[in-house]
Amino acid sequence: MPPTIALRDLSQHEGQEVRVRGWLYNRRSSGKLEFLILRDGTGYVQAVAFKKELPEEVFESCRRLTQESSVIVSGSVRRDDRSPWGYEIGLSDLEILHIADEYPIGPKEHGVAFLMDHRHLWLRSSMQHAVLRVRSEASLACREFLHSEGFTCVDSPILTPTSCEGTSTLFETDYFGQKAFLSQSGQLYQEATCLAFGRSYCFGPTFRAEKSKTRRHLAEFWMLEPEMAYAGLDDAIDLAERLCCAVIERVLDRNRQDFKRLERDTSLLEGVRAPFPRLTYDEALSRLRERDVEVKWGEDFGGDEETVLASLENHPIVVHRYPTSIKPFYMQPDPEDPRLALNFDVIAPEGYGEIVGGSQRIHEEPLLRERMKSHGLDESVFRWYLELRRYGTVPHAGFGLGIERLVGWFTGVPHLRETIPFPRTLNRLYP
Amino acid sequence: MPPTIALRDLSQHEGQEVRVRGWLYNRRSSGKLEFLILRDGTGYVQAVAFKKELPEEVFESCRRLTQESSVIVSGSVRRDDRSPWGYEIGLSDLEILHIADEYPIGPKEHGVAFLMDHRHLWLRSSMQHAVLRVRSEASLACREFLHSEGFTCVDSPILTPTSCEGTSTLFETDYFGQKAFLSQSGQLYQEATCLAFGRSYCFGPTFRAEKSKTRRHLAEFWMLEPEMAYAGLDDAIDLAERLCCAVIERVLDRNRQDFKRLERDTSLLEGVRAPFPRLTYDEALSRLRERDVEVKWGEDFGGDEETVLASLENHPIVVHRYPTSIKPFYMQPDPEDPRLALNFDVIAPEGYGEIVGGSQRIHEEPLLRERMKSHGLDESVFRWYLELRRYGTVPHAGFGLGIERLVGWFTGVPHLRETIPFPRTLNRLYP
Repeated sequence: MPPTIALRDLSQHEGQEVRVRGWLYNRRSSGKLEFLILRDGTGYVQAVAFKKELPEEVFESCRRLTQESSVIVSGSVRRDDRSPWGYEIGLSDLEILHIADEYPIGPKEHGVAFLMDHRHLWLRSSMQHAVLRVRSEASLACREFLHSEGFTCVDSPILTPTSCEGTSTLFETDYFGQKAFLSQSGQLYQEATCLAFGRSYCFGPTFRAEKSKTRRHLAEFWMLEPEMAYAGLDDAIDLAERLCCAVIERVLDRNRQDFKRLERDTSLLEGVRAPFPRLTYDEALSRLRERDVEVKWGEDFGGDEETVLASLENHPIVVHRYPTSIKPFYMQPDPEDPRLALNFDVIAPEGYGEIVGGSQRIHEEPLLRERMKSHGLDESVFRWYLELRRYGTVPHAGFGLGIERLVGWFTGVPHLRETIPFPRTLNRLYP
Repeated sequence: MPPTIALRDLSQHEGQEVRVRGWLYNRRSSGKLEFLILRDGTGYVQAVAFKKELPEEVFESCRRLTQESSVIVSGSVRRDDRSPWGYEIGLSDLEILHIADEYPIGPKEHGVAFLMDHRHLWLRSSMQHAVLRVRSEASLACREFLHSEGFTCVDSPILTPTSCEGTSTLFETDYFGQKAFLSQSGQLYQEATCLAFGRSYCFGPTFRAEKSKTRRHLAEFWMLEPEMAYAGLDDAIDLAERLCCAVIERVLDRNRQDFKRLERDTSLLEGVRAPFPRLTYDEALSRLRERDVEVKWGEDFGGDEETVLASLENHPIVVHRYPTSIKPFYMQPDPEDPRLALNFDVIAPEGYGEIVGGSQRIHEEPLLRERMKSHGLDESVFRWYLELRRYGTVPHAGFGLGIERLVGWFTGVPHLRETIPFPRTLNRLYP
């Protein structure tokens, strides 16, 4: 029996007999010929069945195949420069595992609700498949970059007794008779672990029960959160920029086929270099004003303002030192102007918005306590967090990177629901 | 100013002046000498302050340091063969960032409840620190092994409309007016994604609201779940064995210092080779009987039986083909004896118990439907799962590996609560 190969390795088997296990992606007929486009999850190939050269029952089997039927095809690999995959297979045998029922997702346009109801099948479509392959590669690249920088992965818990970013948008559960909340961010725990490991990160699901129905909101999404002891704002910005560059380099190298299939113009991605252009919040306001976009000092930017700012450079930009009044309680104030926080966002070009948000954290107990009070937070549930400031506290900084937003930018997919395998939105908990 | 280095890189700076940023782990005095043991999260070193050679205020500063005070030490690196770390630092300057309050965790014995209440600090202790460094390395090694085998990471959702392993042990939350449950396993979703990607995996937190108080139970734990299309039981066993071997090789290579600190005898780990000894359930019953451990056919093994079985070989073993009656609904029956499931467990030696559980899954709709009915499951919530069997269904198999159990075995820590950064147990949701 010829060797069973994955389609991504087709080029290594030119001229050889192989077996391919996969699913029928598409089929064309011309009387004497059947063209079977197969996918196996690692690639695609066209297998050509020539009536004259095959036993009648094999050729007839080819004609019976419906979309997504599972098959094992045997044949010889030959170069084909007209093929988008560079090779085709001259079919010599076909084994059918399952003739699929009429496939619900056809070439005709479907509504998003219909496609999302069939997300378990829609993932097989070449575009969705390509986006999630980029997600997989980018996620691993994030981890490997941080490990190469001396970070330890220290998972933050999901079930927590308290909240980090505000209490109105929490999912709650009964924890053996006690109230527990699903984590909105692992940051507070990373502030503890960076003091134990020097540099630590978590990368897991986070949850926000926001009743928003925009393309930028998911109720469940994955966030990468590195945190460094003995570090300030500039260290965090520097790390975020180098992380972005490392991940971009990796996906451009490994996901070339996926970007091609997505028809994604990668020229802007290829041009990304650290350091990124940096603007203070105040400078950003001026830049916006020059473009007749008026934002009052002390107001946060929305998606529109972010789009304008990042389009000025056609490159991701860093905006730093926002007013403390619009930011969470834990951000260190700028010693040169305490109205400002030592924080930053990385904003992607092409309208993909904020992909990273970070800051230096308050490391002195009295100020932290004061900020918690003015934010109306209950000190008792933050006891452990305050305690960190009593035992060898040091300046520390970190950020959160939303992998869905990063992947949305990389792949040119504007709606975040397509950048996660099984999206959870206001109206969707299925499949 | 001398270069700031991480303590793991000390050996590269022999004879040089360096700066080290860290925390005081311990201190000894002898009048003219202060011995400061420092940790920085990447390693340890003893810095020696010699009164005669230092300005008075520097030597006095050394004497003021309390446990966990944060400091920046400057000095020259010299070889010291008596030191457990191979090097020491001749201190020439000291900068104090923060004098720690009296540290609650001292050398005296503390109760577990006390230590767990201070988990945010306890993580700094060398043993806890070492265990979690092994966890970090093992987790990344799992991912890298699967990627090298052609797997795509496709995250399963946490918020789900239904359950995989039974409904009595679910955490529930209100999802915008709808009931949602925290996932107990990502497997069902991986059955969908392996048909799209060929091979896929998820690795995220899973939740069980079990009212158990044993050392083997956590309410929140991380599980690695690979799934392969066109694969059967033997493929899953083979993958699990090679995964274990790859991860063991990696931690033995990268975590030598951590094992040393844990005083973990790694000789059994070093001897682990694939394939593992394999026993059928029936053979396991006979082996147990030879040791006067009586288990009735059709009963599952408990921790005690697992310990006996794995101690027979001093090596992880595979037990396969358990009775279907004690296993979940989705397992493919053995065609040669349908009372048995095509499933397996990997049981670690030394009493660490089950670390992997997997099976071939039922891929034909009628049988799956029948099993769901006999298990009293509501078909309507599993509609998407059943649909997978209509569109190119193929034999597929996979397993779940609990990273806490794997790390417990590697590090010789019997209680799972020490193998996860912030454990969640029946009575613990803090910190």
